[in-house]
Amino acid sequence: MNKKPLAGLAALLPLAACSDKAQQPNIVFFLVDDFGWVDSSVQYGEELYPNNLRFNTPNMQRLSERSTVFGNAYACAVSTPTRTSIMTGMNAAHTGITNWTSAVRDTPSDATGGGFWMAEHSGSGDALAGDVLSRPDWNMNGISPVPGVPYTQYANSLVQFLKDAGYFTIHVGKAHWASAGTPGVNPYNHGFCVNIAGTMAGMPRDYSGMQNYGNTKERWNDFAVQNLVEYYGTETHLTEALTQEALKALDYPVKHKQPFYLYLASYATHTPIQPDERFAQKYRDAGMDEGQAAYASLVEGVDCSLGQVLDYLEEKGIADNTIVIFMTDNGGNSENKQKGGVLHTQNLPLREGKGSCYEGGIRVPLMIYVPGKTKVGRCDIPVICEDMFPTILDMAGVRGYETVQELDGQSILPLVTGRGEGPDPERPLVFHYPHKWKPYDLEDIDFLSAVRIGDWKLVYRISEGARSANDRLYPDSRNTARAAAVELYNLKEDIGETRNVAADYPETAARLADTLSARLRRWNAPMPVVVATGKTAPLPDEL
Amino acid sequence: MNKKPLAGLAALLPLAACSDKAQQPNIVFFLVDDFGWVDSSVQYGEELYPNNLRFNTPNMQRLSERSTVFGNAYACAVSTPTRTSIMTGMNAAHTGITNWTSAVRDTPSDATGGGFWMAEHSGSGDALAGDVLSRPDWNMNGISPVPGVPYTQYANSLVQFLKDAGYFTIHVGKAHWASAGTPGVNPYNHGFCVNIAGTMAGMPRDYSGMQNYGNTKERWNDFAVQNLVEYYGTETHLTEALTQEALKALDYPVKHKQPFYLYLASYATHTPIQPDERFAQKYRDAGMDEGQAAYASLVEGVDCSLGQVLDYLEEKGIADNTIVIFMTDNGGNSENKQKGGVLHTQNLPLREGKGSCYEGGIRVPLMIYVPGKTKVGRCDIPVICEDMFPTILDMAGVRGYETVQELDGQSILPLVTGRGEGPDPERPLVFHYPHKWKPYDLEDIDFLSAVRIGDWKLVYRISEGARSANDRLYPDSRNTARAAAVELYNLKEDIGETRNVAADYPETAARLADTLSARLRRWNAPMPVVVATGKTAPLPDEL
Repeated sequence: MNKKPLAGLAALLPLAACSDKAQQPNIVFFLVDDFGWVDSSVQYGEELYPNNLRFNTPNMQRLSERSTVFGNAYACAVSTPTRTSIMTGMNAAHTGITNWTSAVRDTPSDATGGGFWMAEHSGSGDALAGDVLSRPDWNMNGISPVPGVPYTQYANSLVQFLKDAGYFTIHVGKAHWASAGTPGVNPYNHGFCVNIAGTMAGMPRDYSGMQNYGNTKERWNDFAVQNLVEYYGTETHLTEALTQEALKALDYPVKHKQPFYLYLASYATHTPIQPDERFAQKYRDAGMDEGQAAYASLVEGVDCSLGQVLDYLEEKGIADNTIVIFMTDNGGNSENKQKGGVLHTQNLPLREGKGSCYEGGIRVPLMIYVPGKTKVGRCDIPVICEDMFPTILDMAGVRGYETVQELDGQSILPLVTGRGEGPDPERPLVFHYPHKWKPYDLEDIDFLSAVRIGDWKLVYRISEGARSANDRLYPDSRNTARAAAVELYNLKEDIGETRNVAADYPETAARLADTLSARLRRWNAPMPVVVATGKTAPLPDEL
Repeated sequence: MNKKPLAGLAALLPLAACSDKAQQPNIVFFLVDDFGWVDSSVQYGEELYPNNLRFNTPNMQRLSERSTVFGNAYACAVSTPTRTSIMTGMNAAHTGITNWTSAVRDTPSDATGGGFWMAEHSGSGDALAGDVLSRPDWNMNGISPVPGVPYTQYANSLVQFLKDAGYFTIHVGKAHWASAGTPGVNPYNHGFCVNIAGTMAGMPRDYSGMQNYGNTKERWNDFAVQNLVEYYGTETHLTEALTQEALKALDYPVKHKQPFYLYLASYATHTPIQPDERFAQKYRDAGMDEGQAAYASLVEGVDCSLGQVLDYLEEKGIADNTIVIFMTDNGGNSENKQKGGVLHTQNLPLREGKGSCYEGGIRVPLMIYVPGKTKVGRCDIPVICEDMFPTILDMAGVRGYETVQELDGQSILPLVTGRGEGPDPERPLVFHYPHKWKPYDLEDIDFLSAVRIGDWKLVYRISEGARSANDRLYPDSRNTARAAAVELYNLKEDIGETRNVAADYPETAARLADTLSARLRRWNAPMPVVVATGKTAPLPDEL
């Protein structure tokens, strides 16, 4: 797709932002991977659910007790869209980066009934006769800090503004903003001063130091983790190795009293679900199956990492000037047998998991601690990943910045501090996954869009919309088109999205459908192609 | 061997050094690999030699015209010993790191007649019947920033002192100080704030971006270069990619006016001798064979890199406060068929090349430019790689530092500025390679030690010494032992070491042999084992 920046801003270089040096707090952004809303002892919802009780996460608990805990925080359904939204301040439907970026550039990560498009996976990528939709034209190469790179969204990054404002910016862990062979894949091009292990990889080849994190002749592939040679052939788990490197990287700014931004993006708890043996045994002893125990141990490894960072801040005497943000990139994976347990139940009471625009795929843990200014406790106003861009610059006191991209997010700092005006609780939040995730059908994941406004949420099944709108294929279904394709839920009453009330509230459904359509149309959002017609699928207001 | 630090200093942490902030210049240390003394248009010797005329190196020339050009600068015979001497200020015979460190820890890189010891190379490593000597007990894991790591020299690094004094310290390129799985392999543990591509690798798996620098399923091994994912699948040569990353890393300290130390250690011109196609064709057109053209193109790539750095310093307006050091880690490789030409002639007029204690293996390019203070022109006072530790701290104005290790080097800054006292021109410089380099015999490389005092140089053939000292094997040779094992050259009259004058100057030979023996004994230098007796080989004063 290779979108152009907005015309009026295209010629502007990012303006030098001004920053209030006296009020530059340190910022730690702790971003976890595939870690679900109920996968810790922290209560994000109105109650503690049975799934919460399975995890031992004392450090997340510790942070929650001093933080604003967001009960309605959202990310995208998969990794790259969230990560690039954080970096750009744009909704994923707006960047056109609606799926995860594959390791090799110009290679769609989409699946079809015929398999994946990627050479490294099986299958030709060609649509099969049974496929209603084929892949959209999307920005499959991710974000780019320079214009003109095919299939990318050109944008000024959050981190570059921080660096320009004097922050020492550190990237540790998973980047996954772009494919190899493009400028966007390199954290140094987005304003990071230090990069440990951030590449095109969306998952680690191996969590074990004994396997050199995948850097062996037998195991190497593009997801082998770089920069950790110190730990090769040792028992050091990947989460631990990354934490240690993060603390080393903090040494310079802490010693020289430079404000720092630490983006510590754990590869855990993504697949492969390999046990973190520091913690796994007690979960086995508690009767969990091996997959559940392994996953719980990865979670506890992340918790331990968080605790080490919090301890470090206290030991160095800088905890009182360090903001901590804790978040996940998408919902917990409920579609992976490695995790053990029963598929599609992992995020209960939320419906479905990673990949889905149902709540299990997009509602995520989020806690924010601002020393001395935090309204401790739950906040249920809906917020979304693209809010992190203006929020973090707000935290850093960076004002007056100009970006080549149009920002969609808003600062949620007022929701934490209680000072100033936060986002409207009724603003629409848009989710868009116009892709097929796996070569087999996942009806609650593939080709979904959604919008939340207040307590209402509309889910649009693009595939059903395409079927219904296609007269030749389904001549009799036309007048029930919207009914088949659109679902409406009241999240306050039905957090599990079990009761579609679209027929009961047709005006509300229409309002949300119109809002979603208008956003997707304005953003020129990627839409899949109807195999039978070769045209892009309809928006919900076209049904 | 796992040497202990000196007893009196063992309990000391490095003392906080004090540094004169007002006089903190930036420092760029440009360290080239396997790049010989006559492999550029720069005249390091008393004349330009025919080999000098084969290379196009305008940027080295440009630097030389403002620098002190050292005509008698020395490194060790192979890579790791030089690199660790720079980091520690110790002679390699003193660190016990006398050979290159292999990728996997606890694995000697030594060869024997039976092959290499390393699993990744062929052969069992066992000595064959014809072998006189077997491998020494040496610090095969390299340097360590913490005590207690087997087979390492524990030492405080040069870079940690710079960082502690406020320098922003950047590592780009080849590290090769230690084996994977040890703390010493990680540049962040030695005081670097940023590390690009520095690992256990002593060579690049591939110079080509089209081959992802070796990061492909087909080509991956431990020498695949990390941190360069941006350039995968592009025509970007490794030397260019590293240069670009170095300039990016400079962005933060330059913008924030922090003094910086950039250690830019090119992987070029090490094997594999693959052409840098930006430059190769003109050398082919000039009639060079493919190996010669490829090597010359790698050299010109390094020259281009140097030019890009010098240009950057000028563009940023910081050239007047930036010291530039240009050096090589050992002599040019004259024992590699990939390089084309005629073996063992590559470094003429110097004898032999990399691996050897003859001049071709150890005499290296060295230029130093100190803005506003440089005595421009040749300096022929002998200097050696361990001098770089105190020299660079002297440049940085770091005073009063204490190290757990005993320093062997001396500041050579007075030789550049003409102010203060430089090293005694008659101080002994020691070279020690108690190893077999390849599974085949290389009589001018394997098992040699040497000492230079003034114009005199003694070369000790340890193997001959061992043969001679072994009564049972060679009962008749005892009284000619030293004559067989020791060679004496006058370098002023015979730079090519073609005329052994030991018989003409027996007292000089004895004086140098005694000095060499005393040094090696005091440092507990690694010595090979005599296969026939199981004892370590004799020092020259024991013959």
